Amino acid sequence: MPNAQAIDPRRNAIVSVIEALKAHWPDRVSVSEAVRTHHANTLTWHTPQPPDVVFFAENTAEVQDVVKLCAEHRVPIIPFGTGTSLEGQINAPFGGVSLDVSRMNAILSVETEDQTCTVQAGVTRKQLNEYLRDQGLFFPVDPGADASLGGMAATRASGTNAVRYGTMRENVMSLTAVMSDGQVISTARRARKSAAGYDLTRLLVGSEGTLGVITEVTLRLHGIPEAIAAAVCPFPSIADACNTAIAAIQSGLPLARVELLDELQIRACNIYSKLTLAETPTLFVEFHGTQSSVDEQVEQFEAIARDNGGSDFKWSTKPEERTTLWQARHDAAYSCLVLRPGAKVMATDVCVPLSRLAECVSLTKQDLADSGLFGPIVGHVGDGNFHVAVLFDGNDPADVARMKGFGERIAMRAIAMDGTCTGEHGVGQGKMAYLDAEFGPALAFMRQIKRSFDPHNIMNPGKIFAL
Amino acid sequence: MPNAQAIDPRRNAIVSVIEALKAHWPDRVSVSEAVRTHHANTLTWHTPQPPDVVFFAENTAEVQDVVKLCAEHRVPIIPFGTGTSLEGQINAPFGGVSLDVSRMNAILSVETEDQTCTVQAGVTRKQLNEYLRDQGLFFPVDPGADASLGGMAATRASGTNAVRYGTMRENVMSLTAVMSDGQVISTARRARKSAAGYDLTRLLVGSEGTLGVITEVTLRLHGIPEAIAAAVCPFPSIADACNTAIAAIQSGLPLARVELLDELQIRACNIYSKLTLAETPTLFVEFHGTQSSVDEQVEQFEAIARDNGGSDFKWSTKPEERTTLWQARHDAAYSCLVLRPGAKVMATDVCVPLSRLAECVSLTKQDLADSGLFGPIVGHVGDGNFHVAVLFDGNDPADVARMKGFGERIAMRAIAMDGTCTGEHGVGQGKMAYLDAEFGPALAFMRQIKRSFDPHNIMNPGKIFAL
Repeated sequence: MPNAQAIDPRRNAIVSVIEALKAHWPDRVSVSEAVRTHHANTLTWHTPQPPDVVFFAENTAEVQDVVKLCAEHRVPIIPFGTGTSLEGQINAPFGGVSLDVSRMNAILSVETEDQTCTVQAGVTRKQLNEYLRDQGLFFPVDPGADASLGGMAATRASGTNAVRYGTMRENVMSLTAVMSDGQVISTARRARKSAAGYDLTRLLVGSEGTLGVITEVTLRLHGIPEAIAAAVCPFPSIADACNTAIAAIQSGLPLARVELLDELQIRACNIYSKLTLAETPTLFVEFHGTQSSVDEQVEQFEAIARDNGGSDFKWSTKPEERTTLWQARHDAAYSCLVLRPGAKVMATDVCVPLSRLAECVSLTKQDLADSGLFGPIVGHVGDGNFHVAVLFDGNDPADVARMKGFGERIAMRAIAMDGTCTGEHGVGQGKMAYLDAEFGPALAFMRQIKRSFDPHNIMNPGKIFAL
Repeated sequence: MPNAQAIDPRRNAIVSVIEALKAHWPDRVSVSEAVRTHHANTLTWHTPQPPDVVFFAENTAEVQDVVKLCAEHRVPIIPFGTGTSLEGQINAPFGGVSLDVSRMNAILSVETEDQTCTVQAGVTRKQLNEYLRDQGLFFPVDPGADASLGGMAATRASGTNAVRYGTMRENVMSLTAVMSDGQVISTARRARKSAAGYDLTRLLVGSEGTLGVITEVTLRLHGIPEAIAAAVCPFPSIADACNTAIAAIQSGLPLARVELLDELQIRACNIYSKLTLAETPTLFVEFHGTQSSVDEQVEQFEAIARDNGGSDFKWSTKPEERTTLWQARHDAAYSCLVLRPGAKVMATDVCVPLSRLAECVSLTKQDLADSGLFGPIVGHVGDGNFHVAVLFDGNDPADVARMKGFGERIAMRAIAMDGTCTGEHGVGQGKMAYLDAEFGPALAFMRQIKRSFDPHNIMNPGKIFAL
């Protein structure tokens, strides 16, 4: 069919790739609609754009083979871990191969003396922590979902512990990645610090698959603290809760977690997670340390909270109570739906300097009210980072338009406050429009890196920026 | 003189640049030999390579003008802060303009609520801390010298506090830089975390002027702790001291500083800083926190040290005693010379995983002895990072050859232990030879970034890698 080839060379290329994949790995390739659709399930408002084919890789060498094959045919590669990203990172707007690394789930090494480990990209955070528990170590970064560590590195993920332990930026020591020409690189060695050369580790962390496919990750681990105390503390207003978090950070309290849930989110958690909390803005906090230092932190925090209108603390040191609490927090994104069954969720996040947090949250709540939108707010307020889950009717174009307008305004509001359009969800397809406002002339240098590393634009094209 | 032009276009270019600089800023340009020599004073074994001209910039716009002028004439630009780098970073192997930013010493803003500040690149760390003291804040990164913050960012500097507070990698939030085509970029906003786009901040931190000239730096600040306790603890052996540091880190003790000084370095400090310490391997440690948490840390540390043969602690909570102690530590590099007056110093550093530290230090001491070299060892042992100051006779080719052979072996030894050829001094000219062993195929991607950002190789050429 020479005519068909001439008309659609892109189709021709993907057909060649699919044939080659099937020839080499017949049991590792799927073109079924169910599998392809699952690999474009964006979980949020982004329209699914399924890949042409899904390949299940089992090691770095296979990823390398697939990337070389795709490079030869100029076919897009979209890395896929657990599919829990929120800004369309797994979509395939130009078709191509969804490279599923979920079977790459081996924990390759744990160096207890060095508090490091190396895992394949498909290992999930819960799997790793389950494995580490007996060794007295844990990995702190905890986005709501049980995401893969490769995906978490790719999106520079974060979570409730970031205020104390940092994000993936601080906790990835080194990466193995397959680059667009099929070369395998390791970005750094296992020393805790280095002044040698450019920081390719930090360049790949947050690159969302646009510069290379992450296949292995070396992580920094932390000792499980001797004592942990968690508490729930209700406040009369959002501002009081924010101001408590800010004052605690400023006073040097080493908070391990400090999470804000607004009254709507508390209501959702009460229903979804069967809690009985007062439906008012609330902080979930946690302290790590020795028993006496935790006791001291608790006392200092209570004093600060009381100064800001907080009262009626519920402290918990029992592991099972804490687990219930944090599971409810991690389920926040899902629990929202009980407030408006059948609705779609637009989950967005921004991050601003601490001094602007209370103002940004307040303006955002006002904006929701003014727009006739309904959306609970939760926040990692120790970092100035918060989320809104806007519940909207996907079948009502007016509601969709309202949701989109709100998304644009919250991003630009955060940028205007010297903040960022995304604290932890990444850019994907959803935040591309705001990077120019956020970075100005610096954006061109990001594009230069992309063009230099991926001249044929086959690595997760259409994400972060259109070239 | 058309002939002369044809014979030496490079000379012609620099003459044009000097003429233009003098025409615009007559009082800001120097071609005097004394000034040029000062700007190539490498402090260590690297042969000085003076620039053709020194320009004293006062703001980002002037840096931009100078870079544009140099770009037009393809003339090298070598950024200069305080001239305290140790691997030849300020040398001008291809001539060009030394761009001295020491007059860019304005503290532009301090946001106490956010614990951030923005400074011009020439502000030094001591100047900043002096300024911050009344506000209860401090900036923790402390290389031995009173370096400029722009230079510290450019070399990914570190120091005694890194074990607790991180290096420049963790403490730079954003940079303003002039790129090779004269564009001014700001790499990030002031949010504590962001998942938006590629991490240009971390890419420029450690790039040693090869990608752009850093003109302003936004830094993360920390609260001055309520209580501080410092101690000196002698040990029977290097291994005992290292093992104490490792055990303390592993037990989760939040050490603020843990510095190893070997018996030679203690002798040098005793003479230079008029101390009376026992001449045996010694840890200098410091704890930060509330009074009760510091008391608890002290108790835990003493127990660990005693288990490893440590005894005869000297604790100090008086600020002036602590200042004397840490000044002696910071003067270590200078104090060595008292042990061999008239010698030259080769100051090198490597960093290895903690589990390999005692072994690496021991093998290095053995190597010194086997080579007939004399060199005290000091180390930021909580990070696995240590320094050797080899004292050698610059006029004796055999001694120079021994020093160079040792430098090569210590770098390769660290790399073989999954460590890095430099933990904090950077690559400059001195460590270029080891990057291939350390990074393998990843090095080519660093080169690609360099070529993409600086196609005419005018930004500090001949550093990190030869192109």
